[in-house]
Amino acid sequence: MEIQLKRLNDAVRFEATNAEGNTVLIEGGEAAGGEGQGVRPTEMLLMSVAACSSIDVVLFLKKMRQELKDIKVDVTGGRDKNEVPSLFKTIHLSYHLYGDLKKEKVEKALQMSIEKYCSVAKMLEKTATITYDYVIHK
Amino acid sequence: MEIQLKRLNDAVRFEATNAEGNTVLIEGGEAAGGEGQGVRPTEMLLMSVAACSSIDVVLFLKKMRQELKDIKVDVTGGRDKNEVPSLFKTIHLSYHLYGDLKKEKVEKALQMSIEKYCSVAKMLEKTATITYDYVIHK
Repeated sequence: MEIQLKRLNDAVRFEATNAEGNTVLIEGGEAAGGEGQGVRPTEMLLMSVAACSSIDVVLFLKKMRQELKDIKVDVTGGRDKNEVPSLFKTIHLSYHLYGDLKKEKVEKALQMSIEKYCSVAKMLEKTATITYDYVIHK
Repeated sequence: MEIQLKRLNDAVRFEATNAEGNTVLIEGGEAAGGEGQGVRPTEMLLMSVAACSSIDVVLFLKKMRQELKDIKVDVTGGRDKNEVPSLFKTIHLSYHLYGDLKKEKVEKALQMSIEKYCSVAKMLEKTATITYDYVIHK
């Protein structure tokens, strides 16, 4: 797997591109001279684990014949900003699942993703304690 | 730090949004029903470490009074695709640095970033061996 990164200005604004040409605008924080035009590298880790896990959950619920109408996830990452470098110590995912879904199936799908299958979660859990909760919106 | 993820279709296409409203289009791979419209969650990890480290390098070289005209980074991630989940075992960054830069300053900046300051590298190095090389384009 390969990606390319190039700089877009004379400060800390970057564009990353994958093999298919899809791009992400990334920018350092204010302290680094960023102007809030792109996502922060550490925010991308939270986005990545949310998407990785949601893809799992979509596929698992489909296999379980549960009709998932929509899914949203809010993710919070906790760090000690005084530490250098400042790693995530906690990551919490709040899943909102829409549809006439069975509680036990949802719980099983979330558990399988976070505890076993989501490769991003398995990498980030080496430094961060990952927790989650969920709400089913019928 | 907080991000939100919402689904954009009835498959595995998502939009992630940070606190400032900046968005990233993320999509699962073909096997998961993706259509190649967004970046893959695991690609985001490579993009994140490239940007995190590049922000460091821009700031370090500035402090060292080195005039960096441009910076590009190619990143390759190696995984065993037969393993489930398939974590990165290797991550290699190839930096291209443009300007009349002193070799020893560049080496120091890269080393400080990867070995000490880049929080994303410090998290991913728990599962992946991170290596790098560089070329100075005068």
